[in-house]
Amino acid sequence: MIDPMKFRDVDPGFRVLMGPGPSDVPTRVLQALSAPCIGHLDPYFLELMDETQELLRYLFAADYPFTIPVSGTGSAGMETGFVNLVEPEDKVLVCVNGVFGTRMSDIVNRIGGRLVRLDFPWGRSVDPEVVRKKAKETNPDILAVVHAETSTGACSSLDELSHVAQEVDALFLVDMVTSLGGMPVNVTDNRIDAAYSGTQKCISCPPGLSPVTLSPRAVEKLNSRKVPVVSWYLDMGMVGSYWDKERKYHHTAPINMLYALREALRIIAEEGMEARFARHDKNHHALVAGLEAMGLSMLVPEKERLPMLNAVRIPDGVNDIQVRSALLKDYNIEIGAGLGDLAGKVWRIGLMGASSTRRNVVLFLGALYTILKSMGSGVKSGALEAANEIYDS
Amino acid sequence: MIDPMKFRDVDPGFRVLMGPGPSDVPTRVLQALSAPCIGHLDPYFLELMDETQELLRYLFAADYPFTIPVSGTGSAGMETGFVNLVEPEDKVLVCVNGVFGTRMSDIVNRIGGRLVRLDFPWGRSVDPEVVRKKAKETNPDILAVVHAETSTGACSSLDELSHVAQEVDALFLVDMVTSLGGMPVNVTDNRIDAAYSGTQKCISCPPGLSPVTLSPRAVEKLNSRKVPVVSWYLDMGMVGSYWDKERKYHHTAPINMLYALREALRIIAEEGMEARFARHDKNHHALVAGLEAMGLSMLVPEKERLPMLNAVRIPDGVNDIQVRSALLKDYNIEIGAGLGDLAGKVWRIGLMGASSTRRNVVLFLGALYTILKSMGSGVKSGALEAANEIYDS
Repeated sequence: MIDPMKFRDVDPGFRVLMGPGPSDVPTRVLQALSAPCIGHLDPYFLELMDETQELLRYLFAADYPFTIPVSGTGSAGMETGFVNLVEPEDKVLVCVNGVFGTRMSDIVNRIGGRLVRLDFPWGRSVDPEVVRKKAKETNPDILAVVHAETSTGACSSLDELSHVAQEVDALFLVDMVTSLGGMPVNVTDNRIDAAYSGTQKCISCPPGLSPVTLSPRAVEKLNSRKVPVVSWYLDMGMVGSYWDKERKYHHTAPINMLYALREALRIIAEEGMEARFARHDKNHHALVAGLEAMGLSMLVPEKERLPMLNAVRIPDGVNDIQVRSALLKDYNIEIGAGLGDLAGKVWRIGLMGASSTRRNVVLFLGALYTILKSMGSGVKSGALEAANEIYDS
Repeated sequence: MIDPMKFRDVDPGFRVLMGPGPSDVPTRVLQALSAPCIGHLDPYFLELMDETQELLRYLFAADYPFTIPVSGTGSAGMETGFVNLVEPEDKVLVCVNGVFGTRMSDIVNRIGGRLVRLDFPWGRSVDPEVVRKKAKETNPDILAVVHAETSTGACSSLDELSHVAQEVDALFLVDMVTSLGGMPVNVTDNRIDAAYSGTQKCISCPPGLSPVTLSPRAVEKLNSRKVPVVSWYLDMGMVGSYWDKERKYHHTAPINMLYALREALRIIAEEGMEARFARHDKNHHALVAGLEAMGLSMLVPEKERLPMLNAVRIPDGVNDIQVRSALLKDYNIEIGAGLGDLAGKVWRIGLMGASSTRRNVVLFLGALYTILKSMGSGVKSGALEAANEIYDS
């Protein structure tokens, strides 16, 4: 037996989401999410599917017909990329500069690919010249890279790495979980063969779906596989038959999440990609200016930084958990902790999608300053002035 | 470029969901779904996770600590069961009496298990005596069965099949996608080692999550695997470390879907399992009485029928698509088509969760009678009277 009266209404309060995702979800997206559920073969739902695909192609800057939201979070998107394109014994060169490159390596090992792992320092970009050398030595079937390392805030160059993939005729697979919607990805122009993302970062939709796009060359590889995809659930051959004109039932689509994604994509289309990227850039620079004015230092060198995820070093003698708890308790602000070797050493401050606002930058700088000051750390004043200088420039 | 003005607000209208799922979602569940998104490590969210686990154990009638919602639809739950418990070369006896048993076989093949496939007629239960004989011949490591075959409406006996599993010391894996929440499953009492379901059937939450429960014996098997689980995303060892006290980040949980599931489970707890099962039973019998009064015949023999999914034969000379289109267009009612060999031969009428109501039974019988009559089929009158007799008994 169970006493149902002991469970209260869901009421998460008013968080300000400035961690590594999820980001703040606009009211319009939450309203779409709560529209009545209908069937996955309902004619109205099929229309929404087509529209969602069109909006996703715009978001990815991809003209690839195979562009869909996979029914799982960003990590399911990562798994989708590898299980569909890697056959046992295929050689996969994975560039690792943080948690998510490490995860890619783990997946390649699990599914029986031949992993060539190339490590870079955490907090730095992947160096295309080092990748080029390794690629020419090893001649991989697939080159895999994380565009935006969420664990460190480092950005790698899709343009340069794409050239390396072309030089060795490898499929080019890119993790865009954190970058998509917040900075240019140019999938078609960069000749990317497989890319995936998550809904809860710069798209500002709740977590639960993973936008995926596959180039015609990737689809050809998929269709000419010798062994079936090891995952039934993520078999893009079958899932694709539901999203294309065939409408062949595979699994029940997450209907309401798809309502929400479509609305989030519509909001993005209304803003326009250029304006959106400029907004992410501006708020990033203002935040960094404020943090540096306080005497804090960024983990990632200036030219390698992401605009939507800012890893800042925790000052010596400052207690990580105490600061994050105060931010959450006194200001309702969530930021991210460091992962892996960076645990206790950095904070990860997200300015993603709807969370990338001047309001949030000002709020966060004020809150952090106040907390650090009250803890007796040697924090300097002038953060707001430094941030405003960026906004006014 | 894209013109955002061409996309309209999401507005799915007023469907009555009487297909094989999704079922009608209560307003309270939709409201919970649209609460503001928060972080997957937020203290408030961690509380909701614990509560959700407690409510899921009640729903499964399972006292197993490992009881969680997996971040994918019911099919992801199926994949979860097999990829975690089957190691390459493990022998898996799969009972097949419809689409979902067939899918189980497909998954076992993909992941390199040794499949022993045992087929039964579609529209009938799995015969425990036949399973017993095969199990004793083949001595499988795992016995897998679909409790409620959504493709046909046939129910198999968990009690009897559980005994077979025990006799050959096999792990007992059960698909409860359609049955959970609508009829007894008694996971602990039936000594079931792995069970999974979907949220969009008798739980009446939108699709997107899959409740999963694993017995201590199943967890032991998982922990003593020689090779890693082939799926990183569905690796229950790692996912379990997020749901237990460790709270170790694995992937970003589908926050809002979990709000909705918790609310749907709270509604179930308020109704109570016995009352809920009795409601499903009563509406099922009333529907069948009405259909039979019209002269239609059920696919599944009386004692083998599910209460929540009713497959009825399409009368000779009646056009399947024409009837379903009229139901959708004129009455906003969705029912399901036949799958596989049953395409064009049966309709699948769901009375699941919030959709299992006297209102829906009366509406559907009236609508179907009117449509069949207008098509000049030899449909008989008296459906409503026959249904009412059940309600009044």
